[in-house]
Amino acid sequence: MAKVSFDNKIMLTYEAKAYPGVNKVAELVREDIFLVTGFRAGEYSRGSKCKNLIVFGTADKSDYLEDLDRRGFIRLDEIRGKWETYIFQIVDNPMEGVDHALIIAGSDKRGTIYGLFHLSELMGVSPLVNWNHCFPKRRKNVTLTDEVNLISKEPSVKYRGFFINDEWPAFGNWATEHFGGINASCYEKIFELLLRLKGNYLWPAMWRSNFSMDGPGLESARLADEYGVVMSTSHHEPCMRSGEEYGLLRGEDSIYGDDWSFINNRDGITRFWRDGLVRNKSFENVITMGMRGERDSRILSADSGLKENIDLLRDVIKTQNSLIKEIVDEDIEKVPRQFVLFTEVEEFFYGNCTTKGLMDDPELEGVTLMLSDSNCGYTRTLPDEKMRDHKGGYGMYYHMDMHGGPYSYQWIGGTYLPRMWEQMTQAYEFGVREIWVVNVGDVATQEFGLSFFLDLAYDIEKWGGSDCSITREYADKWVEQQFGGMMPLSCRNKVKKIMWDYTGLLEKRKHEIMNGHVYHPLHFGEAQRILDISEDILKEAAALKKKIEEKDLSAFISLLYYPACGTANLMKMWILAGRNEFFAGQNRIEANDVAALVDECVQMDEALIDEYESVDGGFYRGFGKSEHIGFINWNDEDNRYPVRHLIYGANSPRMLVARKDDENYMTGLEWCDKPQTWENMLRPDVDFVEFDLINGSNRPYKFRIETDCKWMIFDRTEGLVKTKERITLSVDKTLFTEKVTGTFTVESVGYGKAVVTVLAAPRLETAGGAANAEGAFFESDGFICMEAQHYALKQDVAKGGFKILSPYGRNGSAVKVFPSTADFSDEKERPYLEYRFMASEDGEYELTFELAPTTPTVFKPEHYIGYSINNEELRKVNTVRDTQIPFFLSPQWEEEAKDNVKKVRETVTCHRGVNTLKFYGMSPSLVLEKLYLVKKGAILPESYLGPPESYRY
Amino acid sequence: MAKVSFDNKIMLTYEAKAYPGVNKVAELVREDIFLVTGFRAGEYSRGSKCKNLIVFGTADKSDYLEDLDRRGFIRLDEIRGKWETYIFQIVDNPMEGVDHALIIAGSDKRGTIYGLFHLSELMGVSPLVNWNHCFPKRRKNVTLTDEVNLISKEPSVKYRGFFINDEWPAFGNWATEHFGGINASCYEKIFELLLRLKGNYLWPAMWRSNFSMDGPGLESARLADEYGVVMSTSHHEPCMRSGEEYGLLRGEDSIYGDDWSFINNRDGITRFWRDGLVRNKSFENVITMGMRGERDSRILSADSGLKENIDLLRDVIKTQNSLIKEIVDEDIEKVPRQFVLFTEVEEFFYGNCTTKGLMDDPELEGVTLMLSDSNCGYTRTLPDEKMRDHKGGYGMYYHMDMHGGPYSYQWIGGTYLPRMWEQMTQAYEFGVREIWVVNVGDVATQEFGLSFFLDLAYDIEKWGGSDCSITREYADKWVEQQFGGMMPLSCRNKVKKIMWDYTGLLEKRKHEIMNGHVYHPLHFGEAQRILDISEDILKEAAALKKKIEEKDLSAFISLLYYPACGTANLMKMWILAGRNEFFAGQNRIEANDVAALVDECVQMDEALIDEYESVDGGFYRGFGKSEHIGFINWNDEDNRYPVRHLIYGANSPRMLVARKDDENYMTGLEWCDKPQTWENMLRPDVDFVEFDLINGSNRPYKFRIETDCKWMIFDRTEGLVKTKERITLSVDKTLFTEKVTGTFTVESVGYGKAVVTVLAAPRLETAGGAANAEGAFFESDGFICMEAQHYALKQDVAKGGFKILSPYGRNGSAVKVFPSTADFSDEKERPYLEYRFMASEDGEYELTFELAPTTPTVFKPEHYIGYSINNEELRKVNTVRDTQIPFFLSPQWEEEAKDNVKKVRETVTCHRGVNTLKFYGMSPSLVLEKLYLVKKGAILPESYLGPPESYRY
Repeated sequence: MAKVSFDNKIMLTYEAKAYPGVNKVAELVREDIFLVTGFRAGEYSRGSKCKNLIVFGTADKSDYLEDLDRRGFIRLDEIRGKWETYIFQIVDNPMEGVDHALIIAGSDKRGTIYGLFHLSELMGVSPLVNWNHCFPKRRKNVTLTDEVNLISKEPSVKYRGFFINDEWPAFGNWATEHFGGINASCYEKIFELLLRLKGNYLWPAMWRSNFSMDGPGLESARLADEYGVVMSTSHHEPCMRSGEEYGLLRGEDSIYGDDWSFINNRDGITRFWRDGLVRNKSFENVITMGMRGERDSRILSADSGLKENIDLLRDVIKTQNSLIKEIVDEDIEKVPRQFVLFTEVEEFFYGNCTTKGLMDDPELEGVTLMLSDSNCGYTRTLPDEKMRDHKGGYGMYYHMDMHGGPYSYQWIGGTYLPRMWEQMTQAYEFGVREIWVVNVGDVATQEFGLSFFLDLAYDIEKWGGSDCSITREYADKWVEQQFGGMMPLSCRNKVKKIMWDYTGLLEKRKHEIMNGHVYHPLHFGEAQRILDISEDILKEAAALKKKIEEKDLSAFISLLYYPACGTANLMKMWILAGRNEFFAGQNRIEANDVAALVDECVQMDEALIDEYESVDGGFYRGFGKSEHIGFINWNDEDNRYPVRHLIYGANSPRMLVARKDDENYMTGLEWCDKPQTWENMLRPDVDFVEFDLINGSNRPYKFRIETDCKWMIFDRTEGLVKTKERITLSVDKTLFTEKVTGTFTVESVGYGKAVVTVLAAPRLETAGGAANAEGAFFESDGFICMEAQHYALKQDVAKGGFKILSPYGRNGSAVKVFPSTADFSDEKERPYLEYRFMASEDGEYELTFELAPTTPTVFKPEHYIGYSINNEELRKVNTVRDTQIPFFLSPQWEEEAKDNVKKVRETVTCHRGVNTLKFYGMSPSLVLEKLYLVKKGAILPESYLGPPESYRY
Repeated sequence: MAKVSFDNKIMLTYEAKAYPGVNKVAELVREDIFLVTGFRAGEYSRGSKCKNLIVFGTADKSDYLEDLDRRGFIRLDEIRGKWETYIFQIVDNPMEGVDHALIIAGSDKRGTIYGLFHLSELMGVSPLVNWNHCFPKRRKNVTLTDEVNLISKEPSVKYRGFFINDEWPAFGNWATEHFGGINASCYEKIFELLLRLKGNYLWPAMWRSNFSMDGPGLESARLADEYGVVMSTSHHEPCMRSGEEYGLLRGEDSIYGDDWSFINNRDGITRFWRDGLVRNKSFENVITMGMRGERDSRILSADSGLKENIDLLRDVIKTQNSLIKEIVDEDIEKVPRQFVLFTEVEEFFYGNCTTKGLMDDPELEGVTLMLSDSNCGYTRTLPDEKMRDHKGGYGMYYHMDMHGGPYSYQWIGGTYLPRMWEQMTQAYEFGVREIWVVNVGDVATQEFGLSFFLDLAYDIEKWGGSDCSITREYADKWVEQQFGGMMPLSCRNKVKKIMWDYTGLLEKRKHEIMNGHVYHPLHFGEAQRILDISEDILKEAAALKKKIEEKDLSAFISLLYYPACGTANLMKMWILAGRNEFFAGQNRIEANDVAALVDECVQMDEALIDEYESVDGGFYRGFGKSEHIGFINWNDEDNRYPVRHLIYGANSPRMLVARKDDENYMTGLEWCDKPQTWENMLRPDVDFVEFDLINGSNRPYKFRIETDCKWMIFDRTEGLVKTKERITLSVDKTLFTEKVTGTFTVESVGYGKAVVTVLAAPRLETAGGAANAEGAFFESDGFICMEAQHYALKQDVAKGGFKILSPYGRNGSAVKVFPSTADFSDEKERPYLEYRFMASEDGEYELTFELAPTTPTVFKPEHYIGYSINNEELRKVNTVRDTQIPFFLSPQWEEEAKDNVKKVRETVTCHRGVNTLKFYGMSPSLVLEKLYLVKKGAILPESYLGPPESYRY
């Protein structure tokens, strides 16, 4: 078995004819080896003696490789001409005087680089080693055997990268602090990160910086090319010139004129583009085509017609193609170009029923059509079958960070892997395989999501598919990779949980648009659940931190502690703020204590950012600066920290009696009190209820609970209430065999007495007394709620069928039809899921489908679900509410994007007893999370996450 | 000229045959004389020598008077047989050895007593001398001449009194503290107060006390009779037995049975009534008839039919009449009886279209029919012409204090005289002249309103009429009477203003139902006005208090300082609470300062009550105890003190620019700011606007204001904003002759720049350029508002016409048709007022009439106003919105009672230029306060008091 030992004599081959970037990367890997082994590899000179050698190079750029190929140790033909592949092979005695060698042979520059970094990874070095000071475990005697030999595959997606955007204040401050600006030194860090993550493509920062001017000069662009980073510019920056460049160069006397208008200043603008192409033509680029107005506006003014815009845009692209032919390559098909269908450009591409858009326009042939997401992680249009053979293919501009509508999310990255997995895997299936670029804002704290995005793009066979639980595997792997060097497995398992928990919180609601009114403070205990998760994160992360060595704090804080605790603390703050306001509104004296806790969270937010920006000698200084609390506009203008509500206690002791999940309360006072009836113990599986005795005053009161029902058991029947006491009423369901009704009273001694009626049913009683209820959900409190994954029956068809996604979404699971591309809306045969539920009476019910907020894959306001009730006729329902306006930017889009749920409400007629509901496959890209029915006239308590699942027989 | 000097030798006649109560009152007057002169009058014995003598007695109960009559000094025939009249006459040498004498000769017991107290008043002694320790000015050498001689008139209303009600905690605690209970010693104080105020009639406390059992025993009733106080019981306590008595005496073995039901326990109940009549028959009473259920409920259960109830009630009354005939007087017509049409009893009296009520029932002949008010000071049904000749006449049960729906007001009395004047004078005109009784709660702090109520009842010719300004005269007189002895005129004038101001605040909104959302914090400056009035009261009252001698503090605090400052501080607290919440909602950093001020008010509230309860050795201890803050039910259950809202300043200096009366603001920030246009200077009489530069952060910002408009003048154009700076923009209207438009910017240096467009018109420009605009109101900001008193033309008819009421209502004035009884709804000739206004354009306007919240005088949901626009057809509008439910207890009634306004909204079509609006006399008891028109589509800023009056040509 061939092997290589990374001992103190190991050497690396450096060749003058190699790509300089490759040698630079080899230097990084050399450092990596040192970090692991403590040995710095030597430089091998041909013919010298060497026990362990690392031979690296690129096909046709390395004498060693040619030699090894010739002598049969490797076969360069296996990779030659391929895109970014490499041979990774361990051999014994490959050369005279060399005992063991690791051969890394790239098909091209990046193939070699990926091969080199593959070595680092194999040794346990994280791709984030220099970005987060994520240090590997020190190991002596590292040996690799030929079991690791491989020839890498070509990446699934050709161009894979990210967009540094929304870069002020965070990225800008960080770069200025550490590099004196957003310059080549700064980008060198970025390029390394990108390549280590197996990316190859970058949209540089462009808010107030110019990639090809600030390096200084072209230095950043030159360096990118050296490293093999393919540069591009963002969606509205054509011809390799950043958006701000024109602002710097324009003027009355400028050769470029003084008007960003292709109509008024065609010559100036054309010259501007030409000079950009001339400047950057020698580097590897993907050239952005088209034109938008300044600052993300449309090319012509808002009152211009569709056709005008399209014609002008065609003219622009034609002009740009001519320039490219003239300057870059006569054979334009060889020049990577992209056209980004962002916002209004989408309409110009698709056109409408009267005006043909740019689709199929000859000028776009060979141009990659860059689609985009909803700004919030859901892809918009995807290529239908007819479109898929477009020459140039498709790209996707995706967001993990957003500065814009419907809301900005720019602070801590919190990409929830299952959503990205589901959307990007689907996009790939739809043929989006040429370019994947993700907006990562300031990069920092996006490492987890970005790693997955680039790994998925690199190897969709491995990380894609139709089983969402692969994301768990990925997360485990990622945690092992980053934290393997710094903590034992028991701790890493805690980290895994924290990663899921904090990104799960953000999947429910992002930081910036969180506020005290999102989760209902009491209903269904949803706020308490969020609070429990948040407090658990804070507690566990703090406990972990105590065990971390000083040197590892940088990675620990930047990759886990700060993002997770920052998120958890913010969620906690808002939950408490909502609770404070709610309690204050009921004059619960506890409100004042909660106000103090809110303040603690506000201080904690600042402390967490300070800690993040101070750790590792200020390594991340600048990155914590984004506003992230209480947005009321799409951006941070006029944002609001929580308001604390302080109350005065009543002048007499004041009892409030309330179920812990109910906003209604009783005072027990004489004239205006409303006695309550509690029905939740009619549910067969519920035999207790918790309620609170609350004080509305600073003066304590004595309470006394009395009943003459033997089946009611209270954990306490008397005591003193200073702030709040929680009482559990248990019902002994063995004492009755039919539905029972009883009463108890809670007395605030000397002040009043509240009266509660309790209904309870035995454990086994069925709602309608119906037979064949197995697998059916039980109605109680006026509703029936079913998780989509809990269907009673599943029917697939040849063309596709449902699969459960788990983990997924706001509630942990969902169902979706695979293959993702399958469209059943006009089919006769459709897969379906059948749900069964027991209704308590005949009559109308409001049926709500909660779906992921996906958007139509077609450029039409059409996105259908289908269902039928009790085998009645199928109802096909367009989930787009208002078809008179484009879905994108519509109020529905905004609401769904913020709440991360699409709710479709229907009215159905049920009968007492068991009913069936079939949910059919229909349009693609629909993901059902849960369903609930509410009896007409019943009021479902207001909540963000909806009711909990009902009891199931 | 005959005269009497109150020197150190003055004597009083006491006669054994006189009414003991009269002699007791003479003792009180003797003390009064002492308080004024320092001389205690001697007791005259017949034949002895005396320089100055006071002869007092009652016709047929005094030998002196008989003698003087015989000798021609007085003519007893002038009063004999009359009701409560007296001769007050100064004569020289009336008897042997007597030089000068004042003769006080009453037609009856109370006539004599009123005559005696008349002497006290003439000497400057307030009727409140012993109730509030309201001491007279000390005077030496007091001499009265025969210029004061008079024969008093019979009182306007036969029975005049009050109802001590809602007596816990205040009255009950006070009585227990000072008298050991609500007993005869306590009532003696009440009787004195009642008689000094020229009342004669009382409904005693009845919540947990029994007037005829707790004296101890009958002592209170006996003492009442001795003093000449006519006792009665409240609306639901028949046959002189208090409501609680039955509860004490009932039981399984009781002779009265154990069921308050005339159906199930006829014998027991009849016996209960019989024994009550037997017990109290020897005293002067007005006997309550009828029956209600226990605790203010109806006689039969809620599901019983109207006829059932009426029949049973007839049976009850018949039984009671029989008992009275048998026990009290065979000639039942001589027995004063009352039947109170309170709440549901009203319906039993009037019946409906299918069921005849008790009206005109023979059993009610000779029984005074007691009508009542809306619980909130507006009378309900009044006798129409047909009803007015009812034998037994009518009474009125009125509220100055309420424990019940729509809301309780029990804390500080704050009767606004004009409203009571208007309503009770009208009631008198409608023939309500037999009994006036007013609910005064715990009496304390009701002295001002109670004095007026009883004076009006005593002498409606003097204090009634149709000129509301008489109430000013009365208030002046009252202040002089109470405070004349303790401060100079300049101070008393301040007191007069304070009395008007604080009762005026309560006319707008009562304490208990005040909260932070009543007045809009900014719009039309209404909250600021309330705050200014409140702060002025607090300041002036505090200044006055410093000048008050220790001995006078009792009266000063109880009659002025505590009620006025308690009210002002409470209003201030809520205005600040509303401001705090509003500011917090906009993240104005000032919110936190305001929260601290709210807290100061809460502390002040407690301090004011403490001071009131401590002054004068605890003379008022107990009276301050009622809950009075933040009612959310009709009573104090679950009431709420203000919530204080604390905010965090933004992380950067944050400018907010807002007109001081506008809730919208600008931030000057780049993306989401909304520039404003200010139009208020289009109003010809407005040439400046004030606006605020507000800080949303704790970090100050520099501001800079810039414009290139010469006609805009700012009082400052730069400076620093820490919390808030107010800027005045003046417009130099001499610089233009046409409408102008200009722009200015406010920059928060380094952060943002807000842009404001200003429209202005010259001083004389007319809206439509129309001629004949004189007296017309000018539209601006989309509305035209006119005070009702500012009509352009008034047209009376023979049957009546409009008069201005001033002071009156929420805004200071109103108009009403006199005589109050005139009903024009079915007439052809109607009086009207004509208003003129300039509309800015043709089109629809929403016209709002703001009226006093009077109720229909008939037992029908009908209360009409009439108007016509531009001489179009008259529109007769029923101000009762929902005619399917009784007006009383309707949502409309509740809303109007709380807000103290009735709003009638109509849509009218106007034309550009001058329009006319006629408002006609229609139903009686309608009082118009103001009118406003809002252009369709314009949004009138939300406010409680409505818009201010528009500019008038």
